[in-house]
Amino acid sequence: MPAPRRLHLGAFMRPVSIHTGAWRYPGAWPDANFSFPRLRTLIQKLEAGKFDAFFMADHLALLNMPIEALRRSHTVTSFDPLTLLPALAAVTERIGLIATASTTYNDPYHVARKFASLDHISNGRAGWNVVTTANPDAALNFGHDEHMAHGERYKRAREFYDVVTGLWDSFADDAFIRDAESGIFWDPAKMHVLNHVGAELKVRGPLNVARPVQGWPLIVQAGASDAGRQLAAETAEMVFAAGGPIADARAFYADVKARAAAAGRNPDHIKILPGALVVVGDTVEAAKAKRAKLDSLVHYESAIGSLSIALGVDARAFDPDGPLPDIPETEHSKSGRERAIAIARRENLTVRQLAQRLGGYGGAAIVGTPQTIADEMQEWLETGACDGFNVMFPYVPGGLDEFVDQVVPELQRRGIFRTEYEGTTLREHLGLPRPENRFFATARAAE
Amino acid sequence: MPAPRRLHLGAFMRPVSIHTGAWRYPGAWPDANFSFPRLRTLIQKLEAGKFDAFFMADHLALLNMPIEALRRSHTVTSFDPLTLLPALAAVTERIGLIATASTTYNDPYHVARKFASLDHISNGRAGWNVVTTANPDAALNFGHDEHMAHGERYKRAREFYDVVTGLWDSFADDAFIRDAESGIFWDPAKMHVLNHVGAELKVRGPLNVARPVQGWPLIVQAGASDAGRQLAAETAEMVFAAGGPIADARAFYADVKARAAAAGRNPDHIKILPGALVVVGDTVEAAKAKRAKLDSLVHYESAIGSLSIALGVDARAFDPDGPLPDIPETEHSKSGRERAIAIARRENLTVRQLAQRLGGYGGAAIVGTPQTIADEMQEWLETGACDGFNVMFPYVPGGLDEFVDQVVPELQRRGIFRTEYEGTTLREHLGLPRPENRFFATARAAE
Repeated sequence: MPAPRRLHLGAFMRPVSIHTGAWRYPGAWPDANFSFPRLRTLIQKLEAGKFDAFFMADHLALLNMPIEALRRSHTVTSFDPLTLLPALAAVTERIGLIATASTTYNDPYHVARKFASLDHISNGRAGWNVVTTANPDAALNFGHDEHMAHGERYKRAREFYDVVTGLWDSFADDAFIRDAESGIFWDPAKMHVLNHVGAELKVRGPLNVARPVQGWPLIVQAGASDAGRQLAAETAEMVFAAGGPIADARAFYADVKARAAAAGRNPDHIKILPGALVVVGDTVEAAKAKRAKLDSLVHYESAIGSLSIALGVDARAFDPDGPLPDIPETEHSKSGRERAIAIARRENLTVRQLAQRLGGYGGAAIVGTPQTIADEMQEWLETGACDGFNVMFPYVPGGLDEFVDQVVPELQRRGIFRTEYEGTTLREHLGLPRPENRFFATARAAE
Repeated sequence: MPAPRRLHLGAFMRPVSIHTGAWRYPGAWPDANFSFPRLRTLIQKLEAGKFDAFFMADHLALLNMPIEALRRSHTVTSFDPLTLLPALAAVTERIGLIATASTTYNDPYHVARKFASLDHISNGRAGWNVVTTANPDAALNFGHDEHMAHGERYKRAREFYDVVTGLWDSFADDAFIRDAESGIFWDPAKMHVLNHVGAELKVRGPLNVARPVQGWPLIVQAGASDAGRQLAAETAEMVFAAGGPIADARAFYADVKARAAAAGRNPDHIKILPGALVVVGDTVEAAKAKRAKLDSLVHYESAIGSLSIALGVDARAFDPDGPLPDIPETEHSKSGRERAIAIARRENLTVRQLAQRLGGYGGAAIVGTPQTIADEMQEWLETGACDGFNVMFPYVPGGLDEFVDQVVPELQRRGIFRTEYEGTTLREHLGLPRPENRFFATARAAE
């Protein structure tokens, strides 16, 4: 009998909790985003829980939300991921370290060099979440008047990926001899000068860092659009998927794996991990009450703005404590309106509760006991909906501790999550191969 | 009686030793540049020695030397400083962390954000060595066909400094309230949008990081040209000076302090630390023998190239083991030729020894016993030639350990170096004020 499939777990930190009410939750650390000692405690707990990776989002500008909501949000500021993760590498041994870096507002030489450095410093635990940056305000911080168009961003991203991976291959794995006797430190025959000249980028190379421990740091992507899925299918090794109803997740999973196969890749070498806010309780009712408490901490005056945007109508006129009235069709986004109405009807929410749900975190969530959460994760794993999850915690440290102390052991009991790290690199955690150097065949090619 | 003036000591790591023969020295770690465990050991020893700062150079391309010399050099590759220093921050408590970052091949938003993040993560120990990048090959790695001209680089550097420091001032020190009761995380009235539009740069802001612990990370510069000195006088708080004969150092010191005063600054708030390779021996002769041993490890075929460049003639024709013949004047650099000839005559070096001296490290050096080294440092400190030194080690760990174990105690005995850190931030180590926020007066203004 083959070993059962196992979940892979990333901890998605944006910067710490994605829920905008998280910092107000009783017992939460309101300063966790900006406290290295707090972040060290969190990642060490995740490593004790054998997580595959600590995954850090990024923003290159203040979030573009109304100031009334923004001033209530702990997500207003965050550390640069490529500055935080090396520090976290130094206080951990095994957990992977995935940093988001934009292909639109960076030079590929810097990106290649920083991730190569992080991979060496962490002994093979670096991952790069390749994003094209959605927030148009970022353009204004980088000398531009307008954000680059979606199609052009993806075109640049694809070329950027080629350049960065080409730079990582600048040196053969055995280029550095360090023979004190002969005085030869490295062999120039084992260096490749990239000389890239493309539509968007011009980079000579070589990189001035030895080839990364993992060959290449792990490539991660989260694009959901057609262009995003295609880029992921061609290049990604981990996909941060949107979650949502399991039927949609299965369709997404099948689509991306099929695209990867069509691109000539082994579909097992692209791991799909939907994001999910996980709220743990002793009973399902207790977990739901926690979620309701968390949503209630989102201030109504910012939440009602989020609801109005989702519905395409001014929701301030509604009775906050009554049910959601019928909403007429408008020219606004149909999917956002339908989704909001569906949540309100399904969970029987008042206008206030719905507004606070959407203003806090309106995405996929798993709310229940360790057993029901494990049931749900197992169903997703075993019915072709995912290869694991990027878990989001409702608040820290409590919400994270509950996941590690209660849900992880339940997953381990079922044999669908590791009880110990078997390898040392992030690629090894995920069961992914070390890429060949495109310019130099080595003994590894025979493995 | 006032307390005696005290030395400030930086450890200049490029990446580990500046001497190209260092990796071949008996007992040296040839892999130290690319080993985080080695680098952790080195910085922890420097912290035990109460150094003000670990100071890391940077290169955005391979060094532009002939491949015959380059393949013998351990300086061919190095970690990105802004990736290494956060990791070193996590394994130290007090020592300052100075990273080099180019104003020519970076966006100011990234630079501001990374140093602000490092300053928070290290609890106020970050410093930025502002460089314009001298190696023209860097241009080719960043989409350019030619290196930016010297004058334009300095013009951009000055504006870049204004933008970065302006971004660091985006938030008042007390902008973040985190009042869970009211739900207000921060006060928008205490945020400033920079809206910079200049000749070279256009950056809206605000930075999405809270104001750094030090207000601004320490500003460091090394420019020796007229433009470089002026930029330093206007902006720098630490200057990496070239060393050289003490009379030249005194003239440089007086010039930069006078320029700072002319720019309206307190000359005490710009600390001048020449670089010096320090070689420690039990006797002066033993120290000189160490230096000779180190120079002998530079391969002749690369060294003779350096000597030929310095002299402006093909030195391969000379008898390697004879004295340097008379060298005619040529159109080549006069200062380089005169300097090389002066060293050969003063120290009675053969052609081979001179070539290996220049090919290893031709800059300022202090070679002697702990007592003679302390004598020399004290003379420099007390006669207006410096405020301290950026020490370079001949090899690691031995050369570094000898400095910390033998020279530091001698400096402490004389009362010219700290026996314990008195503050927690790099600015406090150097006796420098925390900058005011240019946009927000705070209670600190009254200090």
